[in-house]
Amino acid sequence: MATTETIHHHLHLHRHHDHHNTINTHLKQKTSTKSTRLAKSLSNLLHLHIQGSAQKSLSNVRFEEKKDTPTTSPKEDISDKWRDMHGSSDWNNLLDPLHPLLRREIIKYGEFSQATYDAFDFDSFSKYCGSCRYNRHNLFEKLGLNKHGYIVSKYIYAMSSMKVPRWLEKSRLLENAWSKDSNWMGYVAVSDDEESKRIGRRDIVVAWRGTVAPSEWYEDLKRKLDPIGPHGEAKVEHGFLSIYTSKSDATRYNKSSASEQVMDEVKRLVQFYKEKGEEVSLAITGHSLGGALALLNAYEAASALPGLPISVISFGAPRVGNIAFRDELHQKGVKTLRVVVKQDVVPRMPGIVFNEALQRFVYITGSLEWVYHHVGAELKVDVRSSPYLKHRFNLLGFHSVETYLHLVDGFHSSSSVFRSEARRDLALVNKACDMLVDELRIPQSWYQLANKGLERNAHGRWVKPKRDPEDIPSPIGEEHTLHGTDS
Amino acid sequence: MATTETIHHHLHLHRHHDHHNTINTHLKQKTSTKSTRLAKSLSNLLHLHIQGSAQKSLSNVRFEEKKDTPTTSPKEDISDKWRDMHGSSDWNNLLDPLHPLLRREIIKYGEFSQATYDAFDFDSFSKYCGSCRYNRHNLFEKLGLNKHGYIVSKYIYAMSSMKVPRWLEKSRLLENAWSKDSNWMGYVAVSDDEESKRIGRRDIVVAWRGTVAPSEWYEDLKRKLDPIGPHGEAKVEHGFLSIYTSKSDATRYNKSSASEQVMDEVKRLVQFYKEKGEEVSLAITGHSLGGALALLNAYEAASALPGLPISVISFGAPRVGNIAFRDELHQKGVKTLRVVVKQDVVPRMPGIVFNEALQRFVYITGSLEWVYHHVGAELKVDVRSSPYLKHRFNLLGFHSVETYLHLVDGFHSSSSVFRSEARRDLALVNKACDMLVDELRIPQSWYQLANKGLERNAHGRWVKPKRDPEDIPSPIGEEHTLHGTDS
Repeated sequence: MATTETIHHHLHLHRHHDHHNTINTHLKQKTSTKSTRLAKSLSNLLHLHIQGSAQKSLSNVRFEEKKDTPTTSPKEDISDKWRDMHGSSDWNNLLDPLHPLLRREIIKYGEFSQATYDAFDFDSFSKYCGSCRYNRHNLFEKLGLNKHGYIVSKYIYAMSSMKVPRWLEKSRLLENAWSKDSNWMGYVAVSDDEESKRIGRRDIVVAWRGTVAPSEWYEDLKRKLDPIGPHGEAKVEHGFLSIYTSKSDATRYNKSSASEQVMDEVKRLVQFYKEKGEEVSLAITGHSLGGALALLNAYEAASALPGLPISVISFGAPRVGNIAFRDELHQKGVKTLRVVVKQDVVPRMPGIVFNEALQRFVYITGSLEWVYHHVGAELKVDVRSSPYLKHRFNLLGFHSVETYLHLVDGFHSSSSVFRSEARRDLALVNKACDMLVDELRIPQSWYQLANKGLERNAHGRWVKPKRDPEDIPSPIGEEHTLHGTDS
Repeated sequence: MATTETIHHHLHLHRHHDHHNTINTHLKQKTSTKSTRLAKSLSNLLHLHIQGSAQKSLSNVRFEEKKDTPTTSPKEDISDKWRDMHGSSDWNNLLDPLHPLLRREIIKYGEFSQATYDAFDFDSFSKYCGSCRYNRHNLFEKLGLNKHGYIVSKYIYAMSSMKVPRWLEKSRLLENAWSKDSNWMGYVAVSDDEESKRIGRRDIVVAWRGTVAPSEWYEDLKRKLDPIGPHGEAKVEHGFLSIYTSKSDATRYNKSSASEQVMDEVKRLVQFYKEKGEEVSLAITGHSLGGALALLNAYEAASALPGLPISVISFGAPRVGNIAFRDELHQKGVKTLRVVVKQDVVPRMPGIVFNEALQRFVYITGSLEWVYHHVGAELKVDVRSSPYLKHRFNLLGFHSVETYLHLVDGFHSSSSVFRSEARRDLALVNKACDMLVDELRIPQSWYQLANKGLERNAHGRWVKPKRDPEDIPSPIGEEHTLHGTDS
């Protein structure tokens, strides 16, 4: 059997030593002509390409100018329905057609996932590359997410024991870098009093950061399964587990692992609210790699906190483990909802190899295919359902969180057209990719800082301003100011 | 003889229908792998590549942190030297070594040229694509150029009678576009009272916009020479002349040609100041294509205003006309200073052909080589002289105005190293290219708007704000408010 290779390796998406401080410059260096060709080959194999049926012209669709209208429907009280929305019945009869209240919740968690990218410092010239650009008190405000009524209680950092872990965003200023080993990997947040009332319980959210593109780290998927849990039968992919569990006393930010950091906080919060007599739920969310980490987190949380309603809402997540892993999650009562764009390649992974002789991708016919299984319920959306999106092949665009959220916003049922009442701001789709049709006149990949973060100083010189001391990452104790004892 | 082809054609630098609103996104779509390969072949032919002598490490050079120092030396009174600085003696003994006062003047005119790019609306999704983003009262303030003490008096618009003129930046919103035919092509400005005192005369500047990259319009260089002037012997390249002289009653902004617009204004200002008893000079500046237009402008101005001290300061300009053109300019007393980066390919053009049989570039051996001649004095600077620049092949970077100004700032003489007293902000080099060494940690191509010009409206939707009515281009009369009679 041909050696298993990943999309990344054969797409030659090499890590460049590039300087970037947004998702977008980051992505630009990651694509090449050859990679596009191979990606297309892959796409054809997986039937991900969109056949040439004529794309409906936007003028044929009721396209109203919505600029002066709100972007969401008013919030509704779901306190008597929350368990169903949280997946207690595996979202039976709630997905197709998609229940409007569930749609809103999915988009909420999707925005929490997207926040992990928007706030991330990708600038390899910065000594803070790999950290969050804001401190946890400001994060939601800076990103316009206070509207959801959650408060960030803790940041999560992760490292990897793998040699040359390519998922790690590294500053080039190694001597002065805030960290040589760790990356900001997400956060824990809690619903405030008002939101808790609306949703019928105190909701703890853990949002895991993924990767914006199928990228280098896929090469590191060694197709090596590591056991998880006490029985030894459940197994998960080695690289994901390494990120979730690695730690080293030689580091500043990962003397404890991501797993330990998040479980400490989740347990603390659960205990705090239970002692106050509140109902509590745990929602774990993530996109791409983040969706994989969310499953590992869920497995552990379900073991540590049996009886706690735990759901995973993932976006474009790859497969993570074997059948036994899937079954154990199920037995522990974890509810998983995987949101999948039909044309996105990542949810198909792993499960394919590159056949060197044929110089193309083929499905593996050996044991590997049967090993990796998806978990839980699936909400599948289709790029073709939207008249606002270009349908041509777009590896990054099909995988983008904003594409996912646009399609969820427009999804009524698998047999309906894009909802005419969908209100989500269309411009968001193009934050970090090129998916919107030209008629909408929204620039591609528009989310960027003025002058890449440079500002003029008193002498008129363009300089990178120093980070506010408040926003400098702080590993020590990560103060439990949210109901905690430390300052 | 092989058909003459241009660099552009063989570099496949095709016009894309891309959406961009800065120089940088504009440039990104214009390069491709094949074009890079051919450009390298061209570079080798023209000995433009930089041999692999080890690039001096920045640490070996006295590199002081200059962030908290001014970016220029204090202004000096040159009123008793201005004629020399303006080229009355063809800058004899002023170029090598470079006289510090002349250095300052060159950089001033270079910044006036750069302004034509910084203020230009490249956004093909905007109805104002191809216009200046600011009105003439705000231009210098918005770009931080008030420091030079000049006032903009008129904008210049140009069109072309050539079919599919590819130098023209066009809005895709043809029905609503501010203009289907014209582009903002530059401006006329005048020194204010204080600056006029310092420099010993009232200086009228005409700044012509060029193109940021050797681009499509080179294909349109048909190697067809058109006569200019009354004798019929002086000839200039057809495409340049077309831009300079085209007009059509069917247009809004070019019922008069660029030539007529600029000459009307220059004559008006000359008369105004002469009647006040002031000495007056005319400095015409431009980069790339703009440098070519500057020469045509100078030819015409010298014919219309004999006795007026007229100088051209050009940056990276191609050859423009034949020997007779050069000689007539000389006879009319026009002084031309061509600033040339040794590694820049554009000043070598035209003069080469692509040999289809050999599939490479060769010098032409027929009459054409002998036809096109450069005019005037040359200040040649070398990328290798700067320890702050990467030396590897960079077609765009070698041609960039900011690279030119950096090298002029550091130039003492052809046998000296980069001046240690050079103060110009290094970060500027990377405004629209990738030339600075990594150690400086300045992002490449950093000059960009936050979120590509999108802003959040009252509902939180990301929209392109409307242009201030003040900044909407206005063709009618272009009000002569600067000492003029109209409002």
